[in-house]
Amino acid sequence: MIKCWLTCMKCAQTQPMGLVSRCACGGLLAVEYDLELAKRTLTKEALADRASSMWRYIELLPVQRENAVVSLGEGWTPLIRMTRAEAQLPLKRLYVKREEQNPTGSFKSRGFSSAVSLLHERGIAKAAVPSNGNAASALAAYCARAGMEAYVFVPQDCPELIIQECLNYGAHVYLVDGFIHDAGRIVEEGKATEGWFNTGTMREPGRVEGKKTMGLEMAEQLEWQLPDVIVYPTGGGSGIIGLWKAFRELKELGWVHGELPRLVSVQEAGCQPIVDAVQGFGAGGSSSDTLPTGLRVPEPPDCGIIAELLKQTKGTAVAVTQGEIMKAQQALGKQGISASPEGAATWAGLMRLIEEGWIGTDDSVVLFNTSHAIKYESLQPKPTVPVIRTYANFVHWKRN
Amino acid sequence: MIKCWLTCMKCAQTQPMGLVSRCACGGLLAVEYDLELAKRTLTKEALADRASSMWRYIELLPVQRENAVVSLGEGWTPLIRMTRAEAQLPLKRLYVKREEQNPTGSFKSRGFSSAVSLLHERGIAKAAVPSNGNAASALAAYCARAGMEAYVFVPQDCPELIIQECLNYGAHVYLVDGFIHDAGRIVEEGKATEGWFNTGTMREPGRVEGKKTMGLEMAEQLEWQLPDVIVYPTGGGSGIIGLWKAFRELKELGWVHGELPRLVSVQEAGCQPIVDAVQGFGAGGSSSDTLPTGLRVPEPPDCGIIAELLKQTKGTAVAVTQGEIMKAQQALGKQGISASPEGAATWAGLMRLIEEGWIGTDDSVVLFNTSHAIKYESLQPKPTVPVIRTYANFVHWKRN
Ligand SMILES: Cc1ncc(COP(=O)(O)O)c(C=O)c1O
Ligand SMILES: Cc1ncc(COP(=O)(O)O)c(C=O)c1O
Repeated sequence: MIKCWLTCMKCAQTQPMGLVSRCACGGLLAVEYDLELAKRTLTKEALADRASSMWRYIELLPVQRENAVVSLGEGWTPLIRMTRAEAQLPLKRLYVKREEQNPTGSFKSRGFSSAVSLLHERGIAKAAVPSNGNAASALAAYCARAGMEAYVFVPQDCPELIIQECLNYGAHVYLVDGFIHDAGRIVEEGKATEGWFNTGTMREPGRVEGKKTMGLEMAEQLEWQLPDVIVYPTGGGSGIIGLWKAFRELKELGWVHGELPRLVSVQEAGCQPIVDAVQGFGAGGSSSDTLPTGLRVPEPPDCGIIAELLKQTKGTAVAVTQGEIMKAQQALGKQGISASPEGAATWAGLMRLIEEGWIGTDDSVVLFNTSHAIKYESLQPKPTVPVIRTYANFVHWKRN
Repeated sequence: MIKCWLTCMKCAQTQPMGLVSRCACGGLLAVEYDLELAKRTLTKEALADRASSMWRYIELLPVQRENAVVSLGEGWTPLIRMTRAEAQLPLKRLYVKREEQNPTGSFKSRGFSSAVSLLHERGIAKAAVPSNGNAASALAAYCARAGMEAYVFVPQDCPELIIQECLNYGAHVYLVDGFIHDAGRIVEEGKATEGWFNTGTMREPGRVEGKKTMGLEMAEQLEWQLPDVIVYPTGGGSGIIGLWKAFRELKELGWVHGELPRLVSVQEAGCQPIVDAVQGFGAGGSSSDTLPTGLRVPEPPDCGIIAELLKQTKGTAVAVTQGEIMKAQQALGKQGISASPEGAATWAGLMRLIEEGWIGTDDSVVLFNTSHAIKYESLQPKPTVPVIRTYANFVHWKRN
């Protein structure tokens, strides 16, 4: 609840805070805060007594009235050390940030807690979103909590469980014969007539600010020592913008020092516009056999900015195959972590970057597991499991 | 890491701490701690700096070496206030403890973090469990984390996703043509030959101690003011024993005062041994059409103790129908909460108890949502969702 405003990431013009995302010049608008003012109440000591949720950083979130906050218990997710993996890999330290433990089973809870709070604060009653699934269920849950209506549009091959999840939260659910950008067109076309507020990627400033809290938390959990490398599964790219923004604000606050972590985007080979942009190729397009996950965003609205931020931090982008993702999901499972394909992609990316020598023995690394394995189990082959009645049956099975 | 020992809940005889659960007299053994010693390091002030996990209460957990702790980021789950529901219901305050936000998507993470730590501390390499599903996946995850082998035995109608979850963690999974107690017989029969440690309900002291942390956390989150009523979905009953034990220890520590919360067990009508025991009927048996959930435990090993504890707190037990559970799942969904059938049963129980006047305007109530809706979606009818290509299609659908 600190004064904030919007600044264009391209031309640096400022304007008052509002639910807009584009400057007159076409640039992306970012929220800025009076950090000198923020510092008066937001101190490292004060944090010890704050809520165990992302709202502990309320001075760095754009909501102006505390009672407008729409919360379901999001954020302050565990950051766990992977000691067994560390012993086997040529790196210094490895952590996984367990974003699947958010209320809606993915990091998307954060963006929508923040965005829906902004809408709620302004009395907006209907919101819509084009999504690959997790944004849809997060919008649905937070609208339900706030007593608002949610309209969600997802590709028709969206994992079944996520569709059911949206329905469970009482959302109006529509499957779209097309990609997420086709869903986006429907929302844009309908919003005036239907009275929908479009909460799609980079359509309003709240979602990025919510995602930013992942970076703030990670820093606090590491006692303000940033890691060398962060591997993040990237679709629309607001996760990357959020992380970058978190570290920039922490630097300005004087809470972290030195180099920013090298930010790495992981995508699935075949739908890799960010990877292409980093490598200087023309971006865009998706081969039809990529997985229906949050990574499948053939036309991210701000691809150039994402690529720029990755480079600025001396980071990179890497495409991993579907096979590598599936193998990684098992590898994380066998370490006790329920990883969605997107989250598992970070492990696959890590393996690649170690192989290439890009990550080495001096590096501490944080992977973001952005969602639960279970949400995507309709994508996996149904296993055959033995049915038994007695211990004798077990012995028989084991022998054969 | 405080000295602890085992005390029989029936004959009060004590014995050294160990992985046993039955006294020579047949009574259930409970862990006891030197609370005077615990108090020296466990203070309300000290808690402010502790881990945001159930291990913040390490003095009240039976592990003796901190480095034996097998943790995946369990506990310290949100307790959220249901303000909109409060406005509509004749009660004072209503909270939901979001246990589905645990690492394995259910409160079972707690019991197995604790139990697997005890096994790990003693160098045990193979564990088995008869389970309705969530205990199986929790054992699987914690064994994976510790590098141990897990053998899990679940009824053959166990929700598909939970079976896949166990496989994802690398467990050996067997479906049993029968109920959880039939699975239990297989584990008992095989344990000597196979070298399995049986981690079934009330077979060792670790699981109850882990579950106890739900009560400790709830108390801390309510600033040591206990609620009037707790509604808990009950199967084997160790959740109830854990909660009761938490409050007893907090009383002895002098951190809470006055009456204990009235503990309410909710079960599904048709498989309601605890309800029957509280009402003084002969318990046991399950009609074949009850849902395959954690509530379906026709023969809980310590039914009498559970009934006794409920009565001791002036609590009760209530059976709700499958229809009420399904309706409750929707009611919670429309408030933004992903509730499993068991978690939803607490809402159904609340509705009943309000109707009967057992819960009234002076009562503050806590419901425990023990698992995620998504894990059980195979039990729900597949909904038909419109497929569209354009906004015009949407308009068409809406009209019809
Ligand atoms: C689980 C998961 N991981 C990662 C992403 C990609 O995140 P972003 O759009 O911030 O790049 C998504 C987006 O849908 C997602 O659902
Ligand atoms: C989701 C869920 N809720 C409740 C229960 C019942 O818990 P307890 O066995 O402690 O009574 C179970 C047990 O399987 C469960 O999985």
